[in-house]
Amino acid sequence: MGYLEDFEPGQKFASGRLSVEAARIKSFAMEFDPQPFHLDEDRARDSFFKGLAASGWHTAAMTMRLLVASELKPAGGIIGAGFDEMRWPRPVRPGDELHMESEVLEVRPSKPRPDQGVIKVRTTTLNQNGEPVQIFVGNLIVLRRPVSSGRMAAKSAMSETRAWTPVIARSCNTIASS
Amino acid sequence: MGYLEDFEPGQKFASGRLSVEAARIKSFAMEFDPQPFHLDEDRARDSFFKGLAASGWHTAAMTMRLLVASELKPAGGIIGAGFDEMRWPRPVRPGDELHMESEVLEVRPSKPRPDQGVIKVRTTTLNQNGEPVQIFVGNLIVLRRPVSSGRMAAKSAMSETRAWTPVIARSCNTIASS
Repeated sequence: MGYLEDFEPGQKFASGRLSVEAARIKSFAMEFDPQPFHLDEDRARDSFFKGLAASGWHTAAMTMRLLVASELKPAGGIIGAGFDEMRWPRPVRPGDELHMESEVLEVRPSKPRPDQGVIKVRTTTLNQNGEPVQIFVGNLIVLRRPVSSGRMAAKSAMSETRAWTPVIARSCNTIASS
Repeated sequence: MGYLEDFEPGQKFASGRLSVEAARIKSFAMEFDPQPFHLDEDRARDSFFKGLAASGWHTAAMTMRLLVASELKPAGGIIGAGFDEMRWPRPVRPGDELHMESEVLEVRPSKPRPDQGVIKVRTTTLNQNGEPVQIFVGNLIVLRRPVSSGRMAAKSAMSETRAWTPVIARSCNTIASS
């Protein structure tokens, strides 16, 4: 569990692996992204994707699963305020095995919210060939270390987190093309 | 079904509505974002979110469902190359009813790919009180109208879409805070 003070630019976090099954590509798409290239091998063959491909939102959701189980453990959980950039440079296929790598790009305390700050993290999702399938730069809300020490103080800092306040991404990061 | 030539900045597209159920918030989170504030009412109450909230990726996936069923119908399907910006300005709660509004911001032909182009679209997801819960600016790949007319020509243009080529978002749009 890390507070804002425990993060610094350049830190990297790895994840385990997750297999992508054709049946889940289709059932996810049936609920959330019902387009032929995510639903049916034959119709996918004649589409832009030249074969069945996972919805980008399925890839994003699988990446979140990898992220939550990764070594990146901010105090209070992984809470995204939004992101600056997202790309899907190549499709995710049935049988792919995904993992992700995160790197902290920026750490900054919040001026209006002295109990929290934001870390900017680039998360790259890769397939079994080491090819990136998703790259995003997200802003995570992270609690600052409570001034008074001990369990009660930490609990209090959590409880006193007031109404949800959006953190607006101001910068625009450029990600080197792979 | 619209080709690139049918889109222009300022066009708006609306969607139907989608209800958010507590059980689906939890089951989605169990698979993709297993954190206490998405899984359990009691533990969510003491968290940053002050109550059960949908995973941002669940909101994104529900928005895609609304988008696919909306009036926005590019030829070849809704194919995202990536995003310039995404924000979740407030949580999605059990019982919320979501809809979305999309606006075309920019239309540009692809230089390296004469058969396609990109439309930049801002999609705002709103709850039943008209409050934005998600705002993203995405880049969609859209086919250009085939030069020769008729069904075969259109089919050919689809089939000749070659290997997947990423379209890199170069600009950084600023979205007015709500």
